[in-house]
Amino acid sequence: MTHRVLVTGATGFVGRHVVPALAALGFEVHGVGRSPRDGARFHAADLLVPEARRALVAHVRPSHLLHLAWDAEPGRYWTSAANLDWVAASLDLARLFAAQGGRRFVGIGTCAEYAWGAARLDEAATPCRPATLYGAAKDGTHRILAAYAGTQGLGLAWGRLFYLYGPGERRGRLVPDAIRALTAGTPFPTSDGYQRRDYLHVADAAGALATLLASDVTGPVNIGSGTAIPVRTLLDGLAARIGGADRLIYGARPLGPGEPPVIEAETRILNDAVGFRPAYGWAEGLDDTVAWWRRQDAPPR
Amino acid sequence: MTHRVLVTGATGFVGRHVVPALAALGFEVHGVGRSPRDGARFHAADLLVPEARRALVAHVRPSHLLHLAWDAEPGRYWTSAANLDWVAASLDLARLFAAQGGRRFVGIGTCAEYAWGAARLDEAATPCRPATLYGAAKDGTHRILAAYAGTQGLGLAWGRLFYLYGPGERRGRLVPDAIRALTAGTPFPTSDGYQRRDYLHVADAAGALATLLASDVTGPVNIGSGTAIPVRTLLDGLAARIGGADRLIYGARPLGPGEPPVIEAETRILNDAVGFRPAYGWAEGLDDTVAWWRRQDAPPR
Repeated sequence: MTHRVLVTGATGFVGRHVVPALAALGFEVHGVGRSPRDGARFHAADLLVPEARRALVAHVRPSHLLHLAWDAEPGRYWTSAANLDWVAASLDLARLFAAQGGRRFVGIGTCAEYAWGAARLDEAATPCRPATLYGAAKDGTHRILAAYAGTQGLGLAWGRLFYLYGPGERRGRLVPDAIRALTAGTPFPTSDGYQRRDYLHVADAAGALATLLASDVTGPVNIGSGTAIPVRTLLDGLAARIGGADRLIYGARPLGPGEPPVIEAETRILNDAVGFRPAYGWAEGLDDTVAWWRRQDAPPR
Repeated sequence: MTHRVLVTGATGFVGRHVVPALAALGFEVHGVGRSPRDGARFHAADLLVPEARRALVAHVRPSHLLHLAWDAEPGRYWTSAANLDWVAASLDLARLFAAQGGRRFVGIGTCAEYAWGAARLDEAATPCRPATLYGAAKDGTHRILAAYAGTQGLGLAWGRLFYLYGPGERRGRLVPDAIRALTAGTPFPTSDGYQRRDYLHVADAAGALATLLASDVTGPVNIGSGTAIPVRTLLDGLAARIGGADRLIYGARPLGPGEPPVIEAETRILNDAVGFRPAYGWAEGLDDTVAWWRRQDAPPR
């Protein structure tokens, strides 16, 4: 049986890593993004346009759908009204997918769906009580899609991403901006850095999502390392590799309102039911990330 | 200050009662429904068409929005994929409303958002865990809209309807079908009728929603009588007024799966914070309903 997967957001941070991970598992991978790319199975389409969604699904006729696309503009996506558009587009996409015979849908959620404050965020035990529009839009979409999937006999899993880092992350986010400042020797004002966050290398997040899609696990699944580290450990680790530790100005910025001391994923479902364990520890992950940025910043030969 | 309200679903069961109730409170009332109607402030539009939504909101420029419209086709709406369309349309409507300066939005929820089984369903204490796509779509829409309203300074209340009856209810639902059978003397197979449900006369539901819209109460508000009665009491009451008690065949149909013994609204918020109490007891409500159907069934003079 052909497993033909359509990956939305295929040119994004996670998408670029997930396409090869799915191909390695034997999927016929079709990617969609807004801008044209090379590749026999890449489709350029704006998923916020109803007719483009319809044409894409009718053309590809996927058996599996990994829906990564969403508004992720740094600094804006937490409160952007575009979250409402992505709710609507995601529901319609699921409907088109089910109508043409789609069997398995993996959507992307977030640790921001949970009520923050628990020691470890657990799919079964921690209530969802998002403090942001982004979190509420993801949580609401998941609730509606889970009920819809039940009416259609569609397999639905919901991969809740925690903190990611690694090659291809966009500027405007913590790790790329810190690497840039440390490399240039410019000051990097940041929080006190004692808050602990569950960071996962993007290639591991992509591997986890690909393995989840290939499994028959349904419901919410945390995609995390299972061990939160102090943000200070991450930044100090970058400085140890690049130099410029004195450029990190801890305590210059407050934590955002509602930011808890710890955000850590319970990962029993990912580890045991899905059967995925990360390949990178944070030290190897930072080596890899710094090496990638060095290649980017090197002049072309 | 002009309070100009746009009422969606204005020609529906609740809508026809809510329009005069809002006018009585001093609102300038604009209604929208799919089919043309007489009335200076009635607008015919299909709210599932994006351009129609945009044109309507731009034309009316309401300060208040009471959003009743949804798929309510008897026997179908619990599982219909149209629920997904109404989620999307409702989110977009809220966005258009906020963008042109709308100040207060009252959306319509349902007792089916709650985890059924508690003695009384309470806005604060009873978790939302809908068992149906309809319930999940309403619950998800509420969660997303509440977060969106927070980003916009928009006042959002969510009126959760329980069981309604009264003039204008469509065929295919319990009370009109029982009245028709009792009137015609045909058998009416039904459940054992011992389950208790919170029934509210539609004019009271309309009055409650109008009063809620005029208030500054935000968050979920149960719209119910606060006292569940056995369905048997309701049906026996109809037979006492119409005749044909022997036509009611109790126990001929099972309760639906998941139907609990009691569905009853906690109404402290409605009674105390909103300040609304129903005018009809169930006996007066049945008198009124039977009289209305007699007028409908009478030959035109």
